[in-house]
Amino acid sequence: MAENQTLTIRFGIIGCAEIARKVSRGIALAPNATVVAVASRDVEKARRFIAVNALPEDTVAHGSYEALLDDESVDAVYLPLPTSLHVRWAVAAAEKGKHVLLEKPTALCVADLDGILGACEANGVQFMDSTMWMHHPRTAKMKELLSNSDLFGQLRSINSIFTFSANQEFLKNDIRVKPDLDALGALGDLGWYCIRAILWAVDYELPKTAVALRGSVLNEVGVIMACGSSLIWEDGKVATFHCSFLGNLTMELSVLGSKGTLHLGDFVIPYEESSAAFSFASNSGFKELVTGWNPLPSKHVVMTELPQETRMVGEFARLVSSIKSSGSKPESSWPAKTRKTQLVLDAVKASIDKGFEPVEIGS
Amino acid sequence: MAENQTLTIRFGIIGCAEIARKVSRGIALAPNATVVAVASRDVEKARRFIAVNALPEDTVAHGSYEALLDDESVDAVYLPLPTSLHVRWAVAAAEKGKHVLLEKPTALCVADLDGILGACEANGVQFMDSTMWMHHPRTAKMKELLSNSDLFGQLRSINSIFTFSANQEFLKNDIRVKPDLDALGALGDLGWYCIRAILWAVDYELPKTAVALRGSVLNEVGVIMACGSSLIWEDGKVATFHCSFLGNLTMELSVLGSKGTLHLGDFVIPYEESSAAFSFASNSGFKELVTGWNPLPSKHVVMTELPQETRMVGEFARLVSSIKSSGSKPESSWPAKTRKTQLVLDAVKASIDKGFEPVEIGS
Repeated sequence: MAENQTLTIRFGIIGCAEIARKVSRGIALAPNATVVAVASRDVEKARRFIAVNALPEDTVAHGSYEALLDDESVDAVYLPLPTSLHVRWAVAAAEKGKHVLLEKPTALCVADLDGILGACEANGVQFMDSTMWMHHPRTAKMKELLSNSDLFGQLRSINSIFTFSANQEFLKNDIRVKPDLDALGALGDLGWYCIRAILWAVDYELPKTAVALRGSVLNEVGVIMACGSSLIWEDGKVATFHCSFLGNLTMELSVLGSKGTLHLGDFVIPYEESSAAFSFASNSGFKELVTGWNPLPSKHVVMTELPQETRMVGEFARLVSSIKSSGSKPESSWPAKTRKTQLVLDAVKASIDKGFEPVEIGS
Repeated sequence: MAENQTLTIRFGIIGCAEIARKVSRGIALAPNATVVAVASRDVEKARRFIAVNALPEDTVAHGSYEALLDDESVDAVYLPLPTSLHVRWAVAAAEKGKHVLLEKPTALCVADLDGILGACEANGVQFMDSTMWMHHPRTAKMKELLSNSDLFGQLRSINSIFTFSANQEFLKNDIRVKPDLDALGALGDLGWYCIRAILWAVDYELPKTAVALRGSVLNEVGVIMACGSSLIWEDGKVATFHCSFLGNLTMELSVLGSKGTLHLGDFVIPYEESSAAFSFASNSGFKELVTGWNPLPSKHVVMTELPQETRMVGEFARLVSSIKSSGSKPESSWPAKTRKTQLVLDAVKASIDKGFEPVEIGS
């Protein structure tokens, strides 16, 4: 096989969660990826998923996850299973030589994640978590501005909010309110994105300490419905975030530097698919007599031909193709970002469990 | 004198701080107020202030604060003095029967503020703090939406940020970095607005507890350069704020309800003087397959003929006129708002002083 040949990576989807519908469309739109198999413990459910989501007619429906992992036509798996099942099936996938695109939150704790990452490394397969907004071209544009010391200066503080208003059905029956399925609740589902955004803004420098904010809300079986945390770095940077199943859909990110301010209100899912905006202000000041601002913050708009989930799939497939065609090593920066996110998430959870005491962030 | 006659209220300005320039213009633009006297400990400074700011030619320059308070042509004083001087001069003004418009932060602690408010009450004079944005018509429009339970639901959480990037001269010599002048530093200067915005959003229901956020920055003489706090209410509402002299000019307010989200980036000083905008989202959700939002947040624009400081002066003068012309009592809601702001500010300061321990908010 020629070096650097671009292969079309063949995905198997394990589990028919709602989010898998969006990602399977994402795969279908990617020029270097395709869905070849879907597995559910109920083969009829897998068949329906293939039909309803207009996947290629020859997509194979498997009646067990094991069968999909034994399917030699599958290069990589996308795993949208409940978090409690991630270790088992991500490790099994890696051991079968399948590359792993894993839905977030990646694990219930970093020890579990290390099991997954260890299996991926040992088997030479690519790992990436499914944090889609990382792959939007807006994200790169924002990072370019945050990295410009004339425009942004030194990073001082970050605030992030991700909430949505869950209905009664969700609050009673969704996997994200169940201790045996997605035990991290809103922290895992929404706080994951806030923590990732904060780490992204600081170039993945781990904070020293997490102190969860009082006022977190747990359901009657102890799963987090709403919480927040402050994070503190050695050099004085600070961040806060708030995540909740109990507030209107909101996803804000504000990053403040000594000279600049970034703000956006749709950092996880852009308001529109084909373009996304953000506000950036630099060296802000007032007009004479403080009657207004000068300069005003600028609105930046970034277009994208492909949706962010397709860009994610495309990047993942590109790395897999490189491994398959030229024998290159898996890209280690993606699992490293995942692991740091999980470390911070673990510390916030521990702080909540310890009655909002400060918790040092591990490594 | 006929009842409800609208009088033109005659202001004396005590102290020639930079902010007094903006407020003296505000008074000049108010249809029911005028500046008649300016006092400085240096009479030449008062004369220059009158000339430079194009105040009426017959404005009297006083060479002492006492002289202005003895000036019978003065109905009301605007006091932009350093906070440490507020008790002395606000009390003296009240005792001379002058109505008091007091610059924020109003006092170094609630005990000092109570001295001021007690003197105002005892002497039947109106008290108001100079928090200008309270009087912008945008503020009323936002409150209307927050009060609409169909659109906003139940209030869940608030975040507020107010920072500006002080230059080296400020960090060395401004009164706001000096323990004997404005000892509350960034908390008093900027955090005041964040706390007021949070209280405004919850209809002035005091939080139960303040927990200052680790990572506050003090200068070498112990004055706060940057800090933040979380606030927690009995019923589960939560808020956070961050204020700093070390970050690019930023003033954000996000108020989240179970059904709605309010956001604006210029809550203290609108970007433009004649109109001000905010974003409001209600019952936000996603499009099919989460490819975007539906509905999108709406942008609301509120026009104002008069700048917010003029509206503030106009409201204050209207109350003073009512007292003078019809013998009505001073309006008690303004000092009540001030006092609650100061109570929360005191609790945040105490939490910082106690190493970020939770502090119950007094009453």
